[in-house]
Amino acid sequence: MATKNVYFFGNGKADGSGKLVELLGGKGANLAEMSSLGIPVPSGFTITTEVCNIYYENKGKYPKPLVKEVDDNLAKVERSMKKKFGDPKNPLLVSVRSGARRSMPGMMETILNVGLNPETLEGLIAKTGNPRFVWDSYRRLIQMYSDVVMEKAAGIEPKDGEGIRAQLEREMHKMKVKLGVKLDTELSTENLQELVDIYKKKVKQVLGKAFPDDPTEQLWGAINAVFQSWNGKRAFAYRNIEGIPHHWGTAVNVQSMVFGNMGDSSATGVAFTRNPATGENAFYGEWLVNAQGEDVVAGTRTPSPLNKKMKTESSRSLKSLEEVNNKVYKQLFAIRNRLEKHYHDMLDIEFTIEEGVLWMLQCRVGKRNGPAAVRMAVDMHKEKLIDAKTAVLRVTPGQLDELLHPVVDPAAEKKADVFVKGLPAGPGGACGQIVFSADDAVKWAKEGKKVILVREETNPEDVEGMRAAEAILTARGGMTSHAALVARGWGKCCIVGAGDLEIEHGKKIAMAGGVKLKEGAWVTLNGTKGYAYAGQIPLIDAAEGNPNFDKFMKICDSIRKLKVRTNAETPGDAKKARLFGAEGIGLFRTEHMFYGEGAEQPLSKLRKMILSKDEGERRKALDELYPFVKKDIKATLEAMSGLPVTFRLLDPPLHEFVPQAKAEIDRLCKELGIKPAEFKKRAEALHEINPMMGHRGVRLGVTYPEVAEMQIRAILEAAGELLKAKKKALPEIMIPVVSIKTELDTMLEMAKSVYKEVCKKLGLKSIPHMFGTMIEIPRACLVADKIAETAEFFSFGTNDLTQMGFGYSRDDAGAFLGEYVEKGLLPEDPFQSLDQEGIGELIQIAVERGRKTRKNLKLGICGEHGGDPASVIFCHKVGLDYVSCSPFRVPIARHAAACAAAKEKK
Amino acid sequence: MATKNVYFFGNGKADGSGKLVELLGGKGANLAEMSSLGIPVPSGFTITTEVCNIYYENKGKYPKPLVKEVDDNLAKVERSMKKKFGDPKNPLLVSVRSGARRSMPGMMETILNVGLNPETLEGLIAKTGNPRFVWDSYRRLIQMYSDVVMEKAAGIEPKDGEGIRAQLEREMHKMKVKLGVKLDTELSTENLQELVDIYKKKVKQVLGKAFPDDPTEQLWGAINAVFQSWNGKRAFAYRNIEGIPHHWGTAVNVQSMVFGNMGDSSATGVAFTRNPATGENAFYGEWLVNAQGEDVVAGTRTPSPLNKKMKTESSRSLKSLEEVNNKVYKQLFAIRNRLEKHYHDMLDIEFTIEEGVLWMLQCRVGKRNGPAAVRMAVDMHKEKLIDAKTAVLRVTPGQLDELLHPVVDPAAEKKADVFVKGLPAGPGGACGQIVFSADDAVKWAKEGKKVILVREETNPEDVEGMRAAEAILTARGGMTSHAALVARGWGKCCIVGAGDLEIEHGKKIAMAGGVKLKEGAWVTLNGTKGYAYAGQIPLIDAAEGNPNFDKFMKICDSIRKLKVRTNAETPGDAKKARLFGAEGIGLFRTEHMFYGEGAEQPLSKLRKMILSKDEGERRKALDELYPFVKKDIKATLEAMSGLPVTFRLLDPPLHEFVPQAKAEIDRLCKELGIKPAEFKKRAEALHEINPMMGHRGVRLGVTYPEVAEMQIRAILEAAGELLKAKKKALPEIMIPVVSIKTELDTMLEMAKSVYKEVCKKLGLKSIPHMFGTMIEIPRACLVADKIAETAEFFSFGTNDLTQMGFGYSRDDAGAFLGEYVEKGLLPEDPFQSLDQEGIGELIQIAVERGRKTRKNLKLGICGEHGGDPASVIFCHKVGLDYVSCSPFRVPIARHAAACAAAKEKK
Repeated sequence: MATKNVYFFGNGKADGSGKLVELLGGKGANLAEMSSLGIPVPSGFTITTEVCNIYYENKGKYPKPLVKEVDDNLAKVERSMKKKFGDPKNPLLVSVRSGARRSMPGMMETILNVGLNPETLEGLIAKTGNPRFVWDSYRRLIQMYSDVVMEKAAGIEPKDGEGIRAQLEREMHKMKVKLGVKLDTELSTENLQELVDIYKKKVKQVLGKAFPDDPTEQLWGAINAVFQSWNGKRAFAYRNIEGIPHHWGTAVNVQSMVFGNMGDSSATGVAFTRNPATGENAFYGEWLVNAQGEDVVAGTRTPSPLNKKMKTESSRSLKSLEEVNNKVYKQLFAIRNRLEKHYHDMLDIEFTIEEGVLWMLQCRVGKRNGPAAVRMAVDMHKEKLIDAKTAVLRVTPGQLDELLHPVVDPAAEKKADVFVKGLPAGPGGACGQIVFSADDAVKWAKEGKKVILVREETNPEDVEGMRAAEAILTARGGMTSHAALVARGWGKCCIVGAGDLEIEHGKKIAMAGGVKLKEGAWVTLNGTKGYAYAGQIPLIDAAEGNPNFDKFMKICDSIRKLKVRTNAETPGDAKKARLFGAEGIGLFRTEHMFYGEGAEQPLSKLRKMILSKDEGERRKALDELYPFVKKDIKATLEAMSGLPVTFRLLDPPLHEFVPQAKAEIDRLCKELGIKPAEFKKRAEALHEINPMMGHRGVRLGVTYPEVAEMQIRAILEAAGELLKAKKKALPEIMIPVVSIKTELDTMLEMAKSVYKEVCKKLGLKSIPHMFGTMIEIPRACLVADKIAETAEFFSFGTNDLTQMGFGYSRDDAGAFLGEYVEKGLLPEDPFQSLDQEGIGELIQIAVERGRKTRKNLKLGICGEHGGDPASVIFCHKVGLDYVSCSPFRVPIARHAAACAAAKEKK
Repeated sequence: MATKNVYFFGNGKADGSGKLVELLGGKGANLAEMSSLGIPVPSGFTITTEVCNIYYENKGKYPKPLVKEVDDNLAKVERSMKKKFGDPKNPLLVSVRSGARRSMPGMMETILNVGLNPETLEGLIAKTGNPRFVWDSYRRLIQMYSDVVMEKAAGIEPKDGEGIRAQLEREMHKMKVKLGVKLDTELSTENLQELVDIYKKKVKQVLGKAFPDDPTEQLWGAINAVFQSWNGKRAFAYRNIEGIPHHWGTAVNVQSMVFGNMGDSSATGVAFTRNPATGENAFYGEWLVNAQGEDVVAGTRTPSPLNKKMKTESSRSLKSLEEVNNKVYKQLFAIRNRLEKHYHDMLDIEFTIEEGVLWMLQCRVGKRNGPAAVRMAVDMHKEKLIDAKTAVLRVTPGQLDELLHPVVDPAAEKKADVFVKGLPAGPGGACGQIVFSADDAVKWAKEGKKVILVREETNPEDVEGMRAAEAILTARGGMTSHAALVARGWGKCCIVGAGDLEIEHGKKIAMAGGVKLKEGAWVTLNGTKGYAYAGQIPLIDAAEGNPNFDKFMKICDSIRKLKVRTNAETPGDAKKARLFGAEGIGLFRTEHMFYGEGAEQPLSKLRKMILSKDEGERRKALDELYPFVKKDIKATLEAMSGLPVTFRLLDPPLHEFVPQAKAEIDRLCKELGIKPAEFKKRAEALHEINPMMGHRGVRLGVTYPEVAEMQIRAILEAAGELLKAKKKALPEIMIPVVSIKTELDTMLEMAKSVYKEVCKKLGLKSIPHMFGTMIEIPRACLVADKIAETAEFFSFGTNDLTQMGFGYSRDDAGAFLGEYVEKGLLPEDPFQSLDQEGIGELIQIAVERGRKTRKNLKLGICGEHGGDPASVIFCHKVGLDYVSCSPFRVPIARHAAACAAAKEKK
């Protein structure tokens, strides 16, 4: 408990400091800090957050010493500012503002110009020579005060729902109608004087009390109102949403008013210590002569650039502060340097020049976009302003992500109406014409058109169309649905599970919220937000060739401990991922070679194998398939030249590969020498009610050992052949969907015998490789100690672990997951960010038990969560060796891993 | 380590006892025990299992003192039997047999008649006056010895795969051809003498060594061969399968031979101390004059009943031992009494009478069928022969189960050929004509026919047909598939997942293994084994009106701690379950009121609700549904009069209830005022790819709160109305599929507000009830501590927990689970018997964490495992309060709970 209730600041001194955020709130602490630094801040004082709490605990009573403390501090302010509160000749006016620990913008009250009354008003007119401004200020004070203090804080319920503010505004409206003018600014000084009279009468009439012209009464009324507003409806609700504790309380800042509109030697401005849009180390801001702060922001007058450097084509004619008042500019520039050195960060500042005297009104860490954040981190690190840990933590994952995709121009996006909302499955922006089938997507794209593929949901047969499209929009599916997975793998913009989207395939129409879009209509997607817009919105490219990106990633790499691998299945993807910094492939999904371009031949062989009637037929088909599988594996191993590559054996239920198209069915029937009826029968036998929990992964390996055997042989032969050619190769054989140790034993036994055969065939003594398993079934986590007897590595398949752990089908959970997150039942979609409480606990159990059996057990994660920053940080904490994610997420994962290490060290 | 290598028995004494099973093996320990009891046992000695281990550790060398110990003990045997080993006049012959801790029938070697040679042979002929028998014994000794000792134990590989035994048999065959005879018994003494010569020459020629006529050499050769056979291929493989440790080793029993075929004062027989088929407390056995043991079993001569009491119509003319030699019979009867008193169990004994002297050759606990096991347990408990714990453990679950279903006559079943094998989903036997649709089943049954419903798999629309059928046979699905669950609920015989079964619906044909069965063909099912037979096999009813059943269950109840509830949804089932001893309903599945008889109206209302477009439509449909739901709930609560009833809110995915039949679709369209196209659209929107992990259970409650609200209201109002009518009611509201605490919070909040409304409406101050959840999602187990903050009880839904924990869809796992169990990857189908290692661990975690938060948390299990004995025992160990199972399994669960308590106390 602090012994003081009130903290003075100003005149190069302060009772408080930037450290006392809890007690003084963010604003108060910052003002104290600036003042202590000798930066000119209009004097004032902060009533602590503790007073707020006492106020509420004691039903609106303040601690006894408060009145005296406020009086004493007010006197200090008067001395410091050489003005007197209530003095008709040289009046001190003050602002009364809230200030909580964390910013709650617009949620609490502010009252300006406290201390103005018919007497002090005259003094101010004399000083400013601007009676209209002073009368308008007074008019505003009455309006604000009667609303905030006399009505709201007093708890008066407005009659017929119309409060005093609205009633006063109606009076002004009446006057404007009478005078035949439209804008407030068209009212003359005399009009305003008359309006003040009308206001005062109205206040008395409506609220039964006169507006208080006593400055002290005004001051305490304002303080009281700010404290009251802490528990106002809006503020209360906001805190609930943002998770801000109600017991924090707000401070109240009482600060001298300074005026930038006291003539041509006065001015006001806002600035950033560096360019918040590019990150460039250059002082960046705008100012307006003879103006108040709000004028800079309001856009009614065009502000001028702060200095010559930032002048552009369009602002060339405007005079900069540097040119107009070089002395003050230099003073401001020195403050800018002082602040950056002190805060080690880019700051957002507000200043006012009152009759040639510079006053700093505000200083806080400045907002910035992705490219700027990265550049500042890199520059400040180079300038030795911050260390590597700090640099890493200065960039949010979202900011880094901005550099990796073209994005929708935020300014233009603001003006557009959302067509439909869905899940943000693939980040970035895209713009194109909609089509409703994969074939059309391919056709249109060949014609040079940019297309957006719109589907209910996608399946492997759509893959070519998905690749051809700029982006994908689906009505169903979740963050790990087929569309989402494929799109993210390619770094493609994608929105899934847009529940309101209705598609009429026959008419080629997409509908949502009453809007109908026909085939060919333009649509713009913001895949980072999950918003789709009708029409074209420009895209901006934030990253291409950004030199700071590489520098920043190097800083990240210098402190992270977690390795980052990628999920990739082609030599092309492997190369791309290495460029992004991948240190191996954590997940090579064998089945992916059957999708997409060039997959026709292997896919048809695979289908033949799947639809074989017996082992004989199947072995024949496998022999035909073998060269394709080996070729892909070998090329990928070669591309990674010695970095580890984890090959997951065939995982999905076989029926996923059964063709649906008649032509393909006919071809297959011919090849297998069977009739369509027989085909149908075999295909139906593969049908499953819950395929995700069906005959897949290692279960296929157990029942059709020859299928697993072929793959293991291909992996080992490919590696062996590279070794013989003096090339490096480090394959890891990964068995999916394991839940019982014996499953893995069976596979290991087979792998051992294949290994012997391959070594013999190639004349090699050994082929370095590892044998391990995916941990993606809850049971596997619980018996991880047993499984680790056989497995040399675990790779957590968190998609499936989330599916089984929650009992959420990723294809179907879209029907309710959105509502779950909206209603707060879940903090996030667990397919997007790992559920650390439940699924994370399963992982922890598996890590502990697995390492108990095998100390050097290699542990990684290869689910979609490997690219989610929060999940990566969890992986670091829990002690994994690596994460693996899609190539485009590799930098995000490297950064997240660095953040985890930085936080740990801090 | 024992200091002795050899243990003598005989002459009313023994070095060992029945307790030394580990050292002497089962046989040796039993012989020692009998001998100690003063029961006449042909003298002999046992070489310990430790010698076996030393033999293997020292590469075939025996401990040094062994030769002397064997000599000394052989001398003791000679003294006791008053014969001498190798004495030409009064020769002692011995058998040399294996004897492991646990019986390994037929897996190791036995050599009889050791000590026979051309000299002793003459002495035996003089004593028996039966030269043919003696020569045949000698012939057999040579054949057996040359095979077992001289070839196998010596490690000689037979040339061309033909061993000495086969070659000798060929010689005998040649002789028979030459003499023009067919049977061995047609060979004369002279023929046998000649054959012995031929044998001896052949042995010398083939094995390069003469058959040893020295008795001592014979003896050691035989001992050696028995030890060798412990690691023979067959024995080794058998131990692997049965889980018998290889280090146990076998003992060797050397025992005097006695002969029941030494004339009319000799005899042999087998007996049970009580009737093994009925359990009746009556001495029961058969005997043959002038015969050897194998003759009784072989069936070449018809044995006579042992006593007058057991004579039947057909055996009336045969003379019993009681009549022929009453003195010996009385002696045998006394031994029978002595043994039962000593062993406290029913025994299976073998005896031989050699020239009027009774010898006991074997005594072991006798096998028995279910009714007999129950009767013996009850009787022996009443006779104070055994205590309650022992009585309970005397009956296996399988034996108890026999009393609960008609079963296929085992004798007739042996002779039948299996048509197809599947999973034993519903125990018992059934016989009927096959039909292929539920409608046909209903139709045929109405015509008075007994039908077996044969389907690929069943769904809720088949339920009426399933009820009409005697039994159900499906080609797909696992132990908890729809068919299995429903059938077990009714105690109906059922086989599911008969993978080889092919059904041609068009032709109404079922095929398997080349056999085609048309509609109407008779089939018999053994649902306990999972075997289906073509044709009719008689059934026997083992239980009806068995007075011992109730007595036995009372003994069980006297010691068990675990409560047993039932899964039931109708007042009828509830009453039935109470008769079976249920102490409450652990699972009332709301959805079941929409299946089966009388369900048409509520089902159609439910369908209307499901296909409603918005909350308004839905609420209207719910209002119509409400009275049906409340009525069922109220009737069930009333039937249980104050015993707790757990109502699970609607659990399955909604699309399960979407009608498929056109008439019903049309009716529904009319009622909803929509077109078939709209119907199709709404139905498709409900379709899910993995419905088991889809929009179901509490997830429906979250997204359609009005559905859950209606059910909660029905439960509370039903209970309240009963209370007002001065009746007892104790409902428990159970929320299914919960994985997050917040889900349950949402439901509890709603329940509380409904509760207030209902209390107010009925003018009641309170309605006793509980609020809890099913724990069936793996994540729920991990956050059980949090969930227990809200839940007053947990009921483990082990079906789903097994599904999600293993990632096994119960509908699809049939495709591989059979192979998993067959190949030993899993010890058992985890849907049948709880996987204690993995799923059990999840339960344990939930129990621990749940009770940590809420000490008096009520814990139960309501999955299918509640009726599986091993799982029930697990539930007891882990500290649950109750298990719940289908009505017909309640006795099995009561017994299993008693066994668990009995084992714990022992």
